[in-house]
Amino acid sequence: MKRDEIKDLYANAKEYENKEVCIGGWVKSVRANKEFGFIDFTDGTCFKTLQIVFNKNLSNFEEVSKINTGSTIICSGKIVLTPLNKQPFEMVATNIDIFCATDSEYPLQKKRHSVEFLREIAYLRPRTNLFQAVFRVRSCAAMAIHMYFQENNYVYVNTPLITTTDCEGSDQMFKITTLNFNNLPKDKNGNVDMSKDLFGKQSFITGSGQLHGEAFALAFNKIYTFGPTFRTENSNTKTHANEFWMIEPEIAFCDLEQLMDIEEEMLKYIVKYVIDKCPYELEFLDNFVQKGLLEKLNKLLSSKFVRIDHSDVIDILKKADVKWEFEPQEGGDIAKEHEKYITEYFNGPVFIKNWPKDIKAYYMKLNDDDRTVAAVDLEVPGAGELMGGSQREENYDKIIKRCDEMGVDKNTIDWYLNLRKFGSCVHSGFGMGFERLVMYLTGVENIRDVIPFPRTPQNCDY
Amino acid sequence: MKRDEIKDLYANAKEYENKEVCIGGWVKSVRANKEFGFIDFTDGTCFKTLQIVFNKNLSNFEEVSKINTGSTIICSGKIVLTPLNKQPFEMVATNIDIFCATDSEYPLQKKRHSVEFLREIAYLRPRTNLFQAVFRVRSCAAMAIHMYFQENNYVYVNTPLITTTDCEGSDQMFKITTLNFNNLPKDKNGNVDMSKDLFGKQSFITGSGQLHGEAFALAFNKIYTFGPTFRTENSNTKTHANEFWMIEPEIAFCDLEQLMDIEEEMLKYIVKYVIDKCPYELEFLDNFVQKGLLEKLNKLLSSKFVRIDHSDVIDILKKADVKWEFEPQEGGDIAKEHEKYITEYFNGPVFIKNWPKDIKAYYMKLNDDDRTVAAVDLEVPGAGELMGGSQREENYDKIIKRCDEMGVDKNTIDWYLNLRKFGSCVHSGFGMGFERLVMYLTGVENIRDVIPFPRTPQNCDY
Repeated sequence: MKRDEIKDLYANAKEYENKEVCIGGWVKSVRANKEFGFIDFTDGTCFKTLQIVFNKNLSNFEEVSKINTGSTIICSGKIVLTPLNKQPFEMVATNIDIFCATDSEYPLQKKRHSVEFLREIAYLRPRTNLFQAVFRVRSCAAMAIHMYFQENNYVYVNTPLITTTDCEGSDQMFKITTLNFNNLPKDKNGNVDMSKDLFGKQSFITGSGQLHGEAFALAFNKIYTFGPTFRTENSNTKTHANEFWMIEPEIAFCDLEQLMDIEEEMLKYIVKYVIDKCPYELEFLDNFVQKGLLEKLNKLLSSKFVRIDHSDVIDILKKADVKWEFEPQEGGDIAKEHEKYITEYFNGPVFIKNWPKDIKAYYMKLNDDDRTVAAVDLEVPGAGELMGGSQREENYDKIIKRCDEMGVDKNTIDWYLNLRKFGSCVHSGFGMGFERLVMYLTGVENIRDVIPFPRTPQNCDY
Repeated sequence: MKRDEIKDLYANAKEYENKEVCIGGWVKSVRANKEFGFIDFTDGTCFKTLQIVFNKNLSNFEEVSKINTGSTIICSGKIVLTPLNKQPFEMVATNIDIFCATDSEYPLQKKRHSVEFLREIAYLRPRTNLFQAVFRVRSCAAMAIHMYFQENNYVYVNTPLITTTDCEGSDQMFKITTLNFNNLPKDKNGNVDMSKDLFGKQSFITGSGQLHGEAFALAFNKIYTFGPTFRTENSNTKTHANEFWMIEPEIAFCDLEQLMDIEEEMLKYIVKYVIDKCPYELEFLDNFVQKGLLEKLNKLLSSKFVRIDHSDVIDILKKADVKWEFEPQEGGDIAKEHEKYITEYFNGPVFIKNWPKDIKAYYMKLNDDDRTVAAVDLEVPGAGELMGGSQREENYDKIIKRCDEMGVDKNTIDWYLNLRKFGSCVHSGFGMGFERLVMYLTGVENIRDVIPFPRTPQNCDY
């Protein structure tokens, strides 16, 4: 039962001229009169659909004429080039087997559905044009990421999801257990005895693979992770999910300037790859989701990203003739409204670097001014912060001092701190939220619509 | 501070002849007399090391001569071709900066360490030859998998890790929570009130993305997942870990025979890719881990995998002149000893297909004999079961009947069962444990040694 694929028809239309093909797929819509009819048909292999022409010579002409959206059919027929039509070719059907006919119970009828409604049928929404485009871009962007890093000789490392190491704060991590909640073992003080759990202690699912990634960078020079991460944040915003994918490269013998070079090069590589591989999808998204999407992406390719110190950003914000919700402050954080202003001010992507040490993590390299750390966030127009990275503190004494100043528990990260004694080197890394990237690439504004089955507070269906 | 890379030296040695380079990396060993010395040097970019020659013209000749294994140095010097030596070139150092000198506290001294010892320093073991080889092969195999599927127009789908859907049995899934174990909210019956948890109900981390993958296959035709999965099994064997990575492709309009075609093609693609990309690593593994590894891999490429029914395998086992620990039985499972015998019997990979329905899952396609299901396991010499797959039951009434017969709770999978009403089609899929694959590719026999930071019962360090 070898089948032809619509993707291949579009790629090699000429070769299929007057050829017999057989394709299994699904009806998007049908219109017919008493003599003949047309089916808008997809097999899922391509964003573009195939038009099937059928006529009353079909033994099941009546049934086919009345077939419902979403029905499965197996069609045989001849490919005819139609250079004057909107579609470059169509299939003239000789046989149409109806494998599974849907009825009016089928939730996706031929009309526009709201994204809110579609979220409630997450298992069916990938069949709609919007999600066909989004999830194909997502897949393509993932491949671009692997290609960029592998072509540049990075080693892909699968850092552990289950962990007892506290990277980003254990209050933000999900606890995991095999114990029975209704019958928890207790120690002699009446507290739950986690030593009875599978790992013999409390374990978590992780919010970052960075610390483990650093250990591998000091062995393989350049590594990247690409996997799921978790946060327990109880916030219902357009940009937060409790499960999301992250890319975390880590590079030995690399300082902050070189890190920015890598971030810029990687982002351009991904954007170029997606533009090349997903022309139909981006055209659709440009038309129906974000006007100007393609222009935005093409512009990024030719732009040189601005690099500016955090303190200079604050100066610009202070001088701006804007009534801020959060007043910009020296030594303070950059709010969403500031991110937006600064990318519009420079009309392109902006690296904000050398952040006040008090609002950043203990592992970031302390600058000579003793006031800032060698951290950098990349802000992009329309999406805000896309990547966050830093040069890491490679000096053992200094990182111990920072841990103590910031009240970091050194017990679970002793091995990580030891990396500063055992072959330490200048090294840097960054994290990129994969969903943020997909939102940027597709113009989709809600993170729930770029994740196959999103997990947000009170929402863990499927 | 742009650095050259040893990887690049090996790839383009001629171009570097008499060129000045600067490389940051780590000392593997040093030997010196009063006049000159040699450093065996790695920068992590390549399995092969670089020999650095230095002499007493160096201002820090004394310190360099006494430098310890694992120390970080930044070396400048000229590349000299040495076609008569074991290495094709070496660096004549003009400057060596000692960035971080280790001392005798450094756990990896210049000697052979046991894998058991190395597991205890999982954050340092990637610096050893064995793990340099293993984790580079792992990275390379991951890339091969993405390339195979993307070249064949599969969509990469990130199925959720957090789930409330029961695919493989919730007793085998870790529970997750944000609640405080020592202060759990109770309902009026005194049971823990999971409605107070972040998702409003008990949620798990998943053991499979298959069910979600099927939903996407019915939209995109061909999809694959590649991500972490979890099992709570409390078993300490060489082949079990509580966290591992799986690849789960799912293909619409594909029956069991076609599925086997895909599995065979994919495995050969991966093996060929790794042979091409990791020659130094495989040579090392062939020499020091599994004699005959390369021969085994090359043989696989040219073999045609056997396809045989489960019942015929049982016949062969029964006729065998072997004293079994587990007597082979019609309708019974295939034990490890049987797997081993049957791959040796056929002297190559074997697909065992059409399994007794009672020992397989509810979602597998019931064959016309009403006794077997269209399931297939791939057994490979030396590694046992590498993949398990099946044609899926696409008929709504039949899958409901199977759920009822097998006592499967239909409540959490109603959406999955609905896929059989809404555009159902013949479809098939399989799962491959990524670590099993890496063990097969490297000859490593313990799963703990192919995972960067393995998680097994009582073992969740780092």
